[in-house]
Amino acid sequence: MKTCLHPKYLIPIEPRATVLGDHALVMQDEKILAILSSAEARQQHPDAQHIELPEHAVMPGMINLHGHSAMTLLRGLADDLSLMDWLHNHIWPAEKQHVSEEFVFDGSVYAMAEMLRGGTTTINDMYFYNDDVARAGLHTGMRTVVGCSVLEFPTGYAADADGYLQKALASHQAFQGQSGVSFRLAPHAPYTVSDATFKKIVALAEKHDMGIHCHIHETMDEVNDSIRDHGMRPLQRLHNLGLLSPRLIAAHMVHANEEEIALLAQQGVHIAHNPASNLKLASGFAPIHAMQTAGVNVGIGTDGAASNNKLDLLGDLRMAALLAKAVSSNPTALNAGNALEMATLAGAKALGMDQQIGSLVAGKFADVIAIDLSALETLPLFDPASQIVYAAGREQVSHVWVHGRCLMAERKLQTLDEAQLKDKATWWHQKIAAA
Amino acid sequence: MKTCLHPKYLIPIEPRATVLGDHALVMQDEKILAILSSAEARQQHPDAQHIELPEHAVMPGMINLHGHSAMTLLRGLADDLSLMDWLHNHIWPAEKQHVSEEFVFDGSVYAMAEMLRGGTTTINDMYFYNDDVARAGLHTGMRTVVGCSVLEFPTGYAADADGYLQKALASHQAFQGQSGVSFRLAPHAPYTVSDATFKKIVALAEKHDMGIHCHIHETMDEVNDSIRDHGMRPLQRLHNLGLLSPRLIAAHMVHANEEEIALLAQQGVHIAHNPASNLKLASGFAPIHAMQTAGVNVGIGTDGAASNNKLDLLGDLRMAALLAKAVSSNPTALNAGNALEMATLAGAKALGMDQQIGSLVAGKFADVIAIDLSALETLPLFDPASQIVYAAGREQVSHVWVHGRCLMAERKLQTLDEAQLKDKATWWHQKIAAA
Repeated sequence: MKTCLHPKYLIPIEPRATVLGDHALVMQDEKILAILSSAEARQQHPDAQHIELPEHAVMPGMINLHGHSAMTLLRGLADDLSLMDWLHNHIWPAEKQHVSEEFVFDGSVYAMAEMLRGGTTTINDMYFYNDDVARAGLHTGMRTVVGCSVLEFPTGYAADADGYLQKALASHQAFQGQSGVSFRLAPHAPYTVSDATFKKIVALAEKHDMGIHCHIHETMDEVNDSIRDHGMRPLQRLHNLGLLSPRLIAAHMVHANEEEIALLAQQGVHIAHNPASNLKLASGFAPIHAMQTAGVNVGIGTDGAASNNKLDLLGDLRMAALLAKAVSSNPTALNAGNALEMATLAGAKALGMDQQIGSLVAGKFADVIAIDLSALETLPLFDPASQIVYAAGREQVSHVWVHGRCLMAERKLQTLDEAQLKDKATWWHQKIAAA
Repeated sequence: MKTCLHPKYLIPIEPRATVLGDHALVMQDEKILAILSSAEARQQHPDAQHIELPEHAVMPGMINLHGHSAMTLLRGLADDLSLMDWLHNHIWPAEKQHVSEEFVFDGSVYAMAEMLRGGTTTINDMYFYNDDVARAGLHTGMRTVVGCSVLEFPTGYAADADGYLQKALASHQAFQGQSGVSFRLAPHAPYTVSDATFKKIVALAEKHDMGIHCHIHETMDEVNDSIRDHGMRPLQRLHNLGLLSPRLIAAHMVHANEEEIALLAQQGVHIAHNPASNLKLASGFAPIHAMQTAGVNVGIGTDGAASNNKLDLLGDLRMAALLAKAVSSNPTALNAGNALEMATLAGAKALGMDQQIGSLVAGKFADVIAIDLSALETLPLFDPASQIVYAAGREQVSHVWVHGRCLMAERKLQTLDEAQLKDKATWWHQKIAAA
């Protein structure tokens, strides 16, 4: 099965800052076969399905580096509240009452549908009921990295840290060999995980060659509480425990001083920047430009819909690019080309998957999106990269392929029933609102 | 001519924080006739055109309190540059070469089409060729407040401050009695306008009962240069010149200390907050929550598409609501309901038009929008105000009425030809790119 895309602009991400005109992307089965001139593609691949995209930019699918997909069912349940009010009086009670296998599967599928519709092809998730998140990924076709939560406290899913760890390893085992789904150990945060558990996680990650995904330095309270309780900032504590390495994706990292940025760079830690939720929860302004300048790899995430409230990676990318300029007092910071790289290749690197996804290079998986730039909102068109980052909306994403499989064409989901999904969301709404 | 809207939710803005279910909005000619229960509306107005909006929220049209519409033709021409590089090497040369009656009319019409499609019904503009901006407003049907630029420097439009002032007064005269169009004096900024000219503007505004619209405290450089050149910060200088009053809309006001915020409140100055352009040009973070707490009236603007690059007031409203929380370290700042008020009634107040527009109240002009909340992206639906501000996209705006006239229905512009507009934008793109 061979498909040949003929877009107006081809943005492969590698080589950097490249925009190709009159070029085609050839996909065969689940892989990218070649990038070559449109004319050559027609000549060399007459047997392929040729798709004309005369007003479109084609680029790699975006990678959402931090999310809690299932929480989409709680979108808008509680907004404009202080973090502790939000957690203690709204989110945790709702989670306690409703989170189950069914909630996680339904919520994750729903979130993935929203993300796919907006051009996100990979989700680095973190939640409970690992198998159900994985099943949602296989059901939707979205590339899914399941962060298996680990914390010291009991939930409906497990009783203690060892319980969560056993479930994590069992899930990792159960889905071995399933393409498109993988697992990470996800210690929730420095304030919910003990030193002993962090040490176990470092050892297990090494033993099973798994990545680690953890909320770190999200708020100043977290930093101050750690100084009070451990005599040091969380990052130093995690460093002492051996957690800082290229295996680690640190979500948020809003509060990082110069020394800590140097440490992150030196240890090869990856950052999942969540601009929208960092603002919404008043967590602060992550020093993204300083991190990038120091050589830290920074990808972007939406966080969960309960604190965002849209899983709109393209919209949040614009916000990240705008914020980086004001935070660094430098209007040249995080330019459009670098922003596109942040949403694609940087995410792939963070996941250790940059040999498989994140750019349009022959041999990589065909995770590809097309964006229609012919809307009134994206004319006149001087610079495609700038137009995608600063002017386009996610509703202009027209086509999505993951693993070579077409999941959306002309804005229509190909493998999911949108009406059915909406009915399901409404069913959950009624159930949650009634409680 | 009577029209009756039956939405799922009616959000009148006045009374504050109200969401009505099972209610109808009755419009007659250019005015709002009544808000009453849907059943009563059907009974009392059987002769009206009844429009069913079963998945929609209906609210006042949004008011863009600061823009340079014509500059939409320069969208994406030059991004990710320092302010001075951007102005001196890109924007000003392009303006010098291209700005003309035709450019301003075409660019303004184009911008208005984009704004209408996104639910903005009033634009408080600031540019050159006042008559052409006004003509664009009449052509599109958008409510247009024409800011007539005044500065000391020559452009293709006028030779000096007196020249700009004469043109401003002539435009104000020429369009007297035209409903939907009005004029303001728009001294460009403290650094481009002399004391003598500011004094003339204060006197003329008084004499002709006109409002004033001025960029103020946009950057720290502006503040520092004023201290160097005038021995005081710009706001103090303008206060000494008599400019600070309820007639004044101060665009940006990014840098305002506590004393200045108190002065703004005391003098009744209105603020046009431009979150996206303030970030993009690295101007800084306006202390919006502190202003509101002090009693300053704050509306929201997009600024021009050359520094934004989308005229998406709904998107920028989300950004404003999120930013206000992080800037004030208070996640309860600028909640969804207050944000909706910022985009509607606060803008109307700033323009001195709150008796005519800004809320859905009998007797006001029927400037009304409907937002379809049935998209996958806005389910589940716990709270309509939160969903509009935090989750909806401008593409969900389905219907727009201005002055009682339907300008968009089911996403289709009713009085403008979208294909023609796009051709025009492409024509300008080719002309500008070739230069």
